[in-house]
Amino acid sequence: MTPRIGVVGATGAVGREMLRILEQRDFPLAELRPIASPRSAGKTVSFRGEDIPVTVIAEEAFDGLDLVVWDTPDEVAREWIPRVRDRVVSVDKSAAFRLEPDVPLVVPEINAEAARGHSGLLANPNCTMVTLLMPLAPLHRAAGARRVIASSYQSVSGAGAAGVEDLYEQLEKLLGDREAVRRGDVDLPPGRAFAHPIAFNVIPHVGGFDDLGRTSEERRVANETNKILDADIDIFATAVRVPTVVGHGVSAWVEFDRPLGVEEARALLEGADGVEVEDDGPAGRYPTPLQATGGDKAIVGRLRGDPNNVNALGFFSACDNLRKGAALNAVQIAELLVREQLL
Amino acid sequence: MTPRIGVVGATGAVGREMLRILEQRDFPLAELRPIASPRSAGKTVSFRGEDIPVTVIAEEAFDGLDLVVWDTPDEVAREWIPRVRDRVVSVDKSAAFRLEPDVPLVVPEINAEAARGHSGLLANPNCTMVTLLMPLAPLHRAAGARRVIASSYQSVSGAGAAGVEDLYEQLEKLLGDREAVRRGDVDLPPGRAFAHPIAFNVIPHVGGFDDLGRTSEERRVANETNKILDADIDIFATAVRVPTVVGHGVSAWVEFDRPLGVEEARALLEGADGVEVEDDGPAGRYPTPLQATGGDKAIVGRLRGDPNNVNALGFFSACDNLRKGAALNAVQIAELLVREQLL
Repeated sequence: MTPRIGVVGATGAVGREMLRILEQRDFPLAELRPIASPRSAGKTVSFRGEDIPVTVIAEEAFDGLDLVVWDTPDEVAREWIPRVRDRVVSVDKSAAFRLEPDVPLVVPEINAEAARGHSGLLANPNCTMVTLLMPLAPLHRAAGARRVIASSYQSVSGAGAAGVEDLYEQLEKLLGDREAVRRGDVDLPPGRAFAHPIAFNVIPHVGGFDDLGRTSEERRVANETNKILDADIDIFATAVRVPTVVGHGVSAWVEFDRPLGVEEARALLEGADGVEVEDDGPAGRYPTPLQATGGDKAIVGRLRGDPNNVNALGFFSACDNLRKGAALNAVQIAELLVREQLL
Repeated sequence: MTPRIGVVGATGAVGREMLRILEQRDFPLAELRPIASPRSAGKTVSFRGEDIPVTVIAEEAFDGLDLVVWDTPDEVAREWIPRVRDRVVSVDKSAAFRLEPDVPLVVPEINAEAARGHSGLLANPNCTMVTLLMPLAPLHRAAGARRVIASSYQSVSGAGAAGVEDLYEQLEKLLGDREAVRRGDVDLPPGRAFAHPIAFNVIPHVGGFDDLGRTSEERRVANETNKILDADIDIFATAVRVPTVVGHGVSAWVEFDRPLGVEEARALLEGADGVEVEDDGPAGRYPTPLQATGGDKAIVGRLRGDPNNVNALGFFSACDNLRKGAALNAVQIAELLVREQLL
């Protein structure tokens, strides 16, 4: 079956990336229907050399489709997906349904089997979680991860177009006054995406806070890793925004059930789908977000043992948060559904 | 006694910061003698409204001085300090002697008592270590820290003037080509301070690599915390450079000997010298490097328990790496030596 595919949110940054990836991968489809909010009425999107008019979201916008990929805010997903779930199969990029027991949360290289039992809806995971998960999964399978402490280095595109605009506008304002930056004497109007200036700054706040002082992003890293990999891994995450445009980084320390040497870990990672090893510090080889940007793989390096704990090691990973962390993974789920005739 | 004070490296960024801090704090001194390498011959530095000519480093440059603060590369400290150690008391900002058993490594708020046994040389610690240590010390005293996992967010000024120049030059080149940054397709000549572009990037590499894959910065965070606080704390650090100009951040997870609740931890931190608590996430209050810049204190926040471990909690701290992380702490050591008549 060659499916008819809808992309909701096709005019946004991740939506456009998704169309590019569908092109690049020659995804077999009988129709590509871009769907968006009434704000995008009259717009077109470019796909395989054609300008395709945007369909405004409505129940009939989904008529005849086999598969819909959703890139919308949580509340839009929560409103619309239940209304079409009995008619089309949905792959949802939002966080709305990720932890629902009957919604498989899928990273195809890691838990493709979870897709097989779907009931009309599959979820695409959080981009920071994926950056941690891609190298963690093969190590966990071999040696049993029991405890993970992770800190993130997240780019502003994770906060959408407003985050990117905030960073550039602030940089342009501050670039001419080095002394103000040097003294920390920065007076800027509030941006749209962040509670503090992000240019020349680091903000340990991604998402909303809960009563225990954790952010929603930190909970997602823990909860989604537990759902995909193993509910028994203890995960403590700190989510931090840094002034990069694309590419998330994660610094991780992992304690396993047994000693896992760096050489064995490196061999496991070199054999893992979707993972690229860059691990030769003296030669300047280790993951950076700029290097990961535009690529399909999570890059991992800075592998090193913990001199105080033979069962533990550290690594740093980086991943394109708009591709493997978002659009690419959603397309990979769609490919899996087509390949295994799960539509 | 009102001492005669020399500042070696007075023309560098931290040296100039040191002169500003000596002014701000009305440090009592009978003479201020700026000392620098032959490259700075003929230069003057401004101090208390006077332009003071730089003295070029030589054995006689130290004649008549009581106290010398050194802000030089390790190799200059290693060459020169032993030659004058029997004539003047030295406070060394470099890493050359920090771990020597007969050299006190001092953060005055935390281990002033260590200064009392000095034998002519005291060391000023690493700036990243200080960012971790300031909040860790009061918590450790109360509840016994046993394990620390820390990841840093270090500004380019930690790599000196070349680091700051690299960041600004790269930003100016890249600001006009958003699409190249967006695609990760950045083609820049190598900078002077870093092995990769730092603009719009994150580099998990600070210092040199050892055979076990750790960097010198990561070893310093562990070794210097162990020397100052307690040799029995297991510390695993990841040192990462981010595109900020001033201000280092640290994300830390700490396991204690006993349960330590967030309320108790906050009270301990609020009572600690040199520490400022900013800890109300929903109100946008948490530490950021920009906020710490220009201030004298380490800011701590994002205090939260580990739901998987009652003995553990996490925090984020930020500190001006040129002040408390460097020049201010060295001046505080000098003040301690004068106040306690240790010269």
